[in-house]
Amino acid sequence: MARTDVNTLGEFGLIEHLTRNFPIVQPETLKGVGDDAAVIDNGTHLTVVSTDMLVEGIHFDLAYTPLKHLGYKAVAVNLSDIYAMNAFPKQITVSIALSNRFSVEALEELYAGIHAACETYQVDLVGGDTTSSPKGLVISVTAIGQGDRDLLCYRSGAQVGDLICITGDLGAAYLGLQILEREKQLWQENPQIQPDLENQKYVIGRQLKPEARRDVVEIFRKINLKPTSMIDISDGLASEVFHICKQSKVGALIEESGVPIHPEAEMLALKFKLDPITCALNGGEDYELLFTIRPEDVDLIRFLPEIYIAGEILDAKDGIKLNTKGGNLHALKAQGWVHF
Amino acid sequence: MARTDVNTLGEFGLIEHLTRNFPIVQPETLKGVGDDAAVIDNGTHLTVVSTDMLVEGIHFDLAYTPLKHLGYKAVAVNLSDIYAMNAFPKQITVSIALSNRFSVEALEELYAGIHAACETYQVDLVGGDTTSSPKGLVISVTAIGQGDRDLLCYRSGAQVGDLICITGDLGAAYLGLQILEREKQLWQENPQIQPDLENQKYVIGRQLKPEARRDVVEIFRKINLKPTSMIDISDGLASEVFHICKQSKVGALIEESGVPIHPEAEMLALKFKLDPITCALNGGEDYELLFTIRPEDVDLIRFLPEIYIAGEILDAKDGIKLNTKGGNLHALKAQGWVHF
Repeated sequence: MARTDVNTLGEFGLIEHLTRNFPIVQPETLKGVGDDAAVIDNGTHLTVVSTDMLVEGIHFDLAYTPLKHLGYKAVAVNLSDIYAMNAFPKQITVSIALSNRFSVEALEELYAGIHAACETYQVDLVGGDTTSSPKGLVISVTAIGQGDRDLLCYRSGAQVGDLICITGDLGAAYLGLQILEREKQLWQENPQIQPDLENQKYVIGRQLKPEARRDVVEIFRKINLKPTSMIDISDGLASEVFHICKQSKVGALIEESGVPIHPEAEMLALKFKLDPITCALNGGEDYELLFTIRPEDVDLIRFLPEIYIAGEILDAKDGIKLNTKGGNLHALKAQGWVHF
Repeated sequence: MARTDVNTLGEFGLIEHLTRNFPIVQPETLKGVGDDAAVIDNGTHLTVVSTDMLVEGIHFDLAYTPLKHLGYKAVAVNLSDIYAMNAFPKQITVSIALSNRFSVEALEELYAGIHAACETYQVDLVGGDTTSSPKGLVISVTAIGQGDRDLLCYRSGAQVGDLICITGDLGAAYLGLQILEREKQLWQENPQIQPDLENQKYVIGRQLKPEARRDVVEIFRKINLKPTSMIDISDGLASEVFHICKQSKVGALIEESGVPIHPEAEMLALKFKLDPITCALNGGEDYELLFTIRPEDVDLIRFLPEIYIAGEILDAKDGIKLNTKGGNLHALKAQGWVHF
């Protein structure tokens, strides 16, 4: 029997490959695999469903991740997918597999974080599964949200001439991870050393306790704005721009000068000898929103805090490009996170 | 910090303990943790959500489980929870974490099984996550179903005098597992030995490829029967009777002579020096339905194939009892499956 390594396809390629022959047979299923969330027609409302799996040693490292933060993050990153549909999460299920090295007290910490996230975002924990694993901790969260038929945003709605917008700043979560990884390594080499987190509270907070942009979706309602497309920035800006362009069948121009980077992230990137824009484009785990708006809607967002215009949707034949601060046009490359 | 071992609470105790402080804040959430599925009010319909996590080395052993069967079973056991609400599943999400020992071809096998289950039960695969794991395979399935407000069955509806009914036979899946485990051990001791499955196709099929009882829920619709309570038999009859009794605040009498056991399972149990009724009560993984009906509805089911009357709901003060074939009354004990 042939043996093809899974990493030859990449994460998205693999999902596409495995699910290509699955038909949609239920008339209520409006959207299956391929957006931030699935969409189900329930008559009065649309139900929006998203799911994520977090695996110890792949998505998190308990050497520097407090269990409470982990619980919070596991929920927040999932809700982020629901907000990215321009919908509001209402319920979650949380399934956990854990080895016997975890005590009831450790689980209570994890659930305290899940509880805090449920409170912050006003979602109900309605189910789940708790089982043992031979090794390590696995968390699977499914979020269920409610959306209005006329307001839901897909990845596929961007049109030529639309403006590309970003909420909040990018790259900081990735730099937070770099600090935590460096300190872990130093500590492993010499357990006497106390971690030096350099008062980098901002970037470490972005890594360990990200928030989903519920506030932004609420603002959209208040100012009566419906983005033409939206996606959450979980794998780095570049990867998300590629998703929007692929599904909207368009190209894009990103202005480096328009990509928001926090001053602390910028300084830290230079210290790590990394290009700050690379951290923003390919770092991931920011959980901000990337959305596009019609040019005539620009006045609605121009003076809003934490919303940045970072580029424009182009014709597909123009490709996906980055205009650097130095004025050079590069083809944008999407690395995303390679887990395999 | 105190350290309490998770197995001191048991699986159900642990879930109860961890989720006891989670309030329900969304008005649409009709039922959270504690039944086969959560229930969400969507106006015209009720949405029913259930989730399960299957972990290699805990819930399945790839030494004797073909990946295609595993994919089928992972879906079927989840749908069983939706049918147990007297509702019909419509969509599923499937998340998978796997180590690099799995090839694309192996995953294709797994997804072929998921595909077959989607086809059998007419559900749409609408999302999921595929990620790597340091070791082993983890599958998390969430099923979303649709139910009628007036027809949904909870664990809490059984009333004194109701008849306790079972679909299909019990214990065979557990005996199938015993054969597979025995052959694995023999094979590990001597890899030259060909497995001797003794033509035990029935019990092995019950273990490796269980079906969810969609047909029974369809029959309920046709004969216009609404059970007063229902649960799927995943952890053995005894454990499920306890769930019904606890949530309905009643007692129960189970007649050993009324518990259906397949002749092949019965013979095999004796060969393994196991009491057949113990296999039925505590074996688990049968994925049949346990339901209760009002005594005046008995004529609706009396002549249906594969529906057995196995006892009666008693007052809570009468406890939960088994009347053996020999005419002795025992207190029923629920072991369920202990994973920790």
